[in-house]
Amino acid sequence: MIELNPTHDPARRSWVESANLPDSHFPIQNLPFGAFERGEEVRTGVAIGEQIVDLHALAQARLVEGDAAVACNAALGSTLNEVMALEPRVISALRRALSDLLKSDAPGAGRLRELEAGIMPRMSDVSMRLACEIGDYTDFLTSLHHTERHGRFKGLADPLPAAFKSLPIAYHGRASSIRVSGGDVVRPHGQYRDASGNVAFGPAPALDFELELAAFIGRGNGLTQPIPVERALDHVFGYCLLNDWSAKSIQWFEQVLGPFLGKSFHTSVSPWIITEEALAPFRMAAPARAEGDPELLPHLHGDVDRKAGGLRIALDAHLSTASLRERGDAPVRITHTHLSNLYWTFAQMIAHHTSNGCNLRTGDLLGSGTISGADDLSRACLTELTNAGRDPLALPGGETRVALEDGDEIILSARASAPEAVSIGFGECRGRIAPAVKPGGTHGLRRA
Amino acid sequence: MIELNPTHDPARRSWVESANLPDSHFPIQNLPFGAFERGEEVRTGVAIGEQIVDLHALAQARLVEGDAAVACNAALGSTLNEVMALEPRVISALRRALSDLLKSDAPGAGRLRELEAGIMPRMSDVSMRLACEIGDYTDFLTSLHHTERHGRFKGLADPLPAAFKSLPIAYHGRASSIRVSGGDVVRPHGQYRDASGNVAFGPAPALDFELELAAFIGRGNGLTQPIPVERALDHVFGYCLLNDWSAKSIQWFEQVLGPFLGKSFHTSVSPWIITEEALAPFRMAAPARAEGDPELLPHLHGDVDRKAGGLRIALDAHLSTASLRERGDAPVRITHTHLSNLYWTFAQMIAHHTSNGCNLRTGDLLGSGTISGADDLSRACLTELTNAGRDPLALPGGETRVALEDGDEIILSARASAPEAVSIGFGECRGRIAPAVKPGGTHGLRRA
Repeated sequence: MIELNPTHDPARRSWVESANLPDSHFPIQNLPFGAFERGEEVRTGVAIGEQIVDLHALAQARLVEGDAAVACNAALGSTLNEVMALEPRVISALRRALSDLLKSDAPGAGRLRELEAGIMPRMSDVSMRLACEIGDYTDFLTSLHHTERHGRFKGLADPLPAAFKSLPIAYHGRASSIRVSGGDVVRPHGQYRDASGNVAFGPAPALDFELELAAFIGRGNGLTQPIPVERALDHVFGYCLLNDWSAKSIQWFEQVLGPFLGKSFHTSVSPWIITEEALAPFRMAAPARAEGDPELLPHLHGDVDRKAGGLRIALDAHLSTASLRERGDAPVRITHTHLSNLYWTFAQMIAHHTSNGCNLRTGDLLGSGTISGADDLSRACLTELTNAGRDPLALPGGETRVALEDGDEIILSARASAPEAVSIGFGECRGRIAPAVKPGGTHGLRRA
Repeated sequence: MIELNPTHDPARRSWVESANLPDSHFPIQNLPFGAFERGEEVRTGVAIGEQIVDLHALAQARLVEGDAAVACNAALGSTLNEVMALEPRVISALRRALSDLLKSDAPGAGRLRELEAGIMPRMSDVSMRLACEIGDYTDFLTSLHHTERHGRFKGLADPLPAAFKSLPIAYHGRASSIRVSGGDVVRPHGQYRDASGNVAFGPAPALDFELELAAFIGRGNGLTQPIPVERALDHVFGYCLLNDWSAKSIQWFEQVLGPFLGKSFHTSVSPWIITEEALAPFRMAAPARAEGDPELLPHLHGDVDRKAGGLRIALDAHLSTASLRERGDAPVRITHTHLSNLYWTFAQMIAHHTSNGCNLRTGDLLGSGTISGADDLSRACLTELTNAGRDPLALPGGETRVALEDGDEIILSARASAPEAVSIGFGECRGRIAPAVKPGGTHGLRRA
């Protein structure tokens, strides 16, 4: 567990006025990390309000020293992997130095404000990139509600798999097709059973989103060296939003050894990594296990994890369609859920993942699985929201949806809030469905 | 398809005498690529007999020119990724130049022989390393016999999954724990059901090997840009042996969304990548589809692939135990199989993998799945060899096995052979089971 420190002080405000607006995702208490295009180069940076501190420019201006300078010098490349691999205290030193430079009464802010134009571009002037190289991507299945609903849709006698309450179920995902928020998500081709039961190949008819939170690994572990549950969060650099786009029709037909082409066509992540440190004020107890649930095996039980393994994070999904945009309608909120709907904590996911000696590497990404809860609005994918297509989702203007159509855009967002803390946001994770590419054709991809 | 060229000439012999021995895996017709430790550095190289041409030293000696020099300069790092991303004709130029330098009547061989000590270390003097950085690892399930036997072991009414004959079934594997042949494979801990049906956590009792061939991707494809089946082999740099170590007891309990901790503790690959080009003389027809099999969908059907998508490769697995070694007994051959036992070709695996627009990247690894055939000796894992434990494998000296025990070593090997071609080998893929690491303890890993 990371102790509270001056960067968490709710009284702290920034001289960057956009960071002090009540609905800002990036107040001075957040300071998340990301990568962005600046001219011909890709730079790493830290978000503050509607601006970014360019860490390359900051290093050149020599405005930080000691461990903070060490972290800053590790950020000179085009990805954050080298920063993420540092000891948490070194990363913390950079966040403290930035917080001190950016606070409204900062003694050393003068020089930064002088150089502001060179060091702190506006977000609206840059394009975001993937923050780091992702070696392996693992996706979990940790919401009991999501799992049970899907089991019922399939008509299973026991809708919950036998192992669900003994371990956080997971599968390996595809790392190469993870993309940063904002671009087109091209409808994939694939094999599926058509209405008459024949195997067909064509544009996937049943496209869905899945709202997840994901953890980026900071320091890794060696092969054969499991990470104990109570030390697991020391290995998390931070978190982002993740949309696990799913072509359900492909998935239903192909799935023997888990999801494959039904998901590997595209996975979207939000651009800013909200650090483990920034989330310290939002820690809460892990969800209580129900009476009759199997006792946690020792390697998945930690006293600190039970007390503080949860996070006070509310998450939303909004849908915008071509018709809604034409009418001038704002995106419609279709999901409102909370991280406490998960049965397992991130610390347990990491302890389980490494319990067989599997090594996690800096930059690895761990998705939580769809964060669905018990109530209707907390269903975090269309399959659940429509009861597997039986109850189409009604939208303003008379449109309905049982699956995503070309032109539909999904916008995921999240906020951590707690009494006596300044709420921090995760920004957005956007993706708009583009028509399938004709075989042999090309697709003019819309960039972020 | 790669045309035959002078590097395939069966009359060609090398002045490196060890390459001309009839049982050599690395005659002048092979020239596979790998990476090895030399002093403090990791170098890339090409195998010839019992020696290695150090490509870094070769580049410094300026013994090749043109495209061959381009390829050689791409090989100066510690991995082969940059070489693998080149156009096949550029890689081919380097292999031709090496073949010309190494052939027994080579006009330019004098200079190389002069510098031999500096450029061509002996294999026995170096340790091999992973040849490239592997971004994503995919493992297929393409042997009908392996799949059907496992279905029968599970008592399934239809032992073959419905999709098996429509597409090459696959799952994403774990890239971080892939290791080069030769080291210890530490028995993993994991959750499993004990004899009384309770969920236990401890060293995995049922450990198995699985004999596979794997393809390394050379040039990748862009997201949303499928690779047509007839162009698929242009994207293969080469092949290696793969041991898909499996902790069956973990797998049986955890598997909801495919294999996870039951396999992610360790995967072994042989060190030398046998190039697609070197295998051209061993091309054969793809296995005929049986009457009544569903017709191939157009994106998986290629005339060239049907005619030449197969490879004449025989593969063996040998087992050595501590007792056998103590008795001075050689490893026992337990599996003898052939690549033609697979239902799908590598070209089809690649066409399927990218059919949804998923991007493959240089260095990605695609495992064939366990290469089991119909006959008893061709069963390519212990689960099949022992009929899921019902018929223990009897070894010389009275030992039996239903699963791998600590100290057991598995040695995979393979050879491509064809009339009027010089047979080439894949070298070996070795791994010895080491005892589970005690929680909190450390394990002194035996290196290759």
